[in-house]
Amino acid sequence: MAARNRGYFEALNIFTLNLVSSPGSGKTALLERTLNDLKDSLNFYVIEGDQQTVNDANRIAALEVPVMQINTGKGCHLESDMVFEAVKHLQMRPDSILMIENVGNLVCPSMFDLGEQKRVVIISTTEGEDKPIKYPDMFHTSDVCIINKIDLMPHLNFDLNRLKDYALQVNPGLQFFEVSATTGEGMDAWYEWLRKELNQS
Amino acid sequence: MAARNRGYFEALNIFTLNLVSSPGSGKTALLERTLNDLKDSLNFYVIEGDQQTVNDANRIAALEVPVMQINTGKGCHLESDMVFEAVKHLQMRPDSILMIENVGNLVCPSMFDLGEQKRVVIISTTEGEDKPIKYPDMFHTSDVCIINKIDLMPHLNFDLNRLKDYALQVNPGLQFFEVSATTGEGMDAWYEWLRKELNQS
Repeated sequence: MAARNRGYFEALNIFTLNLVSSPGSGKTALLERTLNDLKDSLNFYVIEGDQQTVNDANRIAALEVPVMQINTGKGCHLESDMVFEAVKHLQMRPDSILMIENVGNLVCPSMFDLGEQKRVVIISTTEGEDKPIKYPDMFHTSDVCIINKIDLMPHLNFDLNRLKDYALQVNPGLQFFEVSATTGEGMDAWYEWLRKELNQS
Repeated sequence: MAARNRGYFEALNIFTLNLVSSPGSGKTALLERTLNDLKDSLNFYVIEGDQQTVNDANRIAALEVPVMQINTGKGCHLESDMVFEAVKHLQMRPDSILMIENVGNLVCPSMFDLGEQKRVVIISTTEGEDKPIKYPDMFHTSDVCIINKIDLMPHLNFDLNRLKDYALQVNPGLQFFEVSATTGEGMDAWYEWLRKELNQS
């Protein structure tokens, strides 16, 4: 079913991202800022995954971006068949970007291919440097690592280079963006990457 | 097997806590400070759960507290049989406290009873207020909620009362402690609770 999703996205030139992270790393805030800044120049669609609530979908819908919420109930991750169902409802136009915000969980989502082109792991500076080596599967299977909440670094005992070293031990090909979804710092490089990838996909 | 663990703990008057949270909420830092402050007056044992690495066990061992690390590999939570194995190795003395630090994950560990007396969910102020309603199982099955990193509140847009309201919606019996494992603020109430519970267990 992941392959079927991939084919569907390819046929329409939909650049699809699977956003994974711990709960509270700021995935939704990052999405909100990205959509706000880019929605006038790019087409976006969003799938939100959570155990419960439609809060995140409501936050995205407030930006007038088409969104589907999937509630997994007892489930700890999205699966490709849930995404396929949501995609059918979204009726996406070609040449768009689909952002899939997975359930906040650094373990289980690593094992489930949704058919995405790129997997993006978000880690916030408040979580400490050691997460890549404690949860290696997630960092190993991701293409991009966004380090969020860099605005809080002056208040933390946190070593950015150590985090990157650990992440590169697990996945030497990982590409990093250092951002604050709150202040907007560092977001431009991420936007440039999104534009480039959409054009190449 | 959870019942067997429970019987084992009862026979020796071991007060057992199952510490659950997102990755990066500060579980290990909280444990370190607790052990450091109380180990001269109380007997402690620790079981550390992580997908990979023995980093956390090394941090605890540095405090000269007996510790067993369990690496779950692809697994996203501890299970009662893993705990039973670790307990056998620890050879615990009666009238002690056993702290089990679960794998950092707000979903899956909620479904697995380890035989603990109390489940303690740790949430940090940097994770936002909505986690109890998005991950209700974890808050519903916990007895105690420790709100960590309160020292960072001046730098965050975070409403402590809203977090508590959400948590109480899911579990009206939840007991709160507001602490900073970094500065030590609020730890005394938590220590007092631990002492009282050990005496009553």
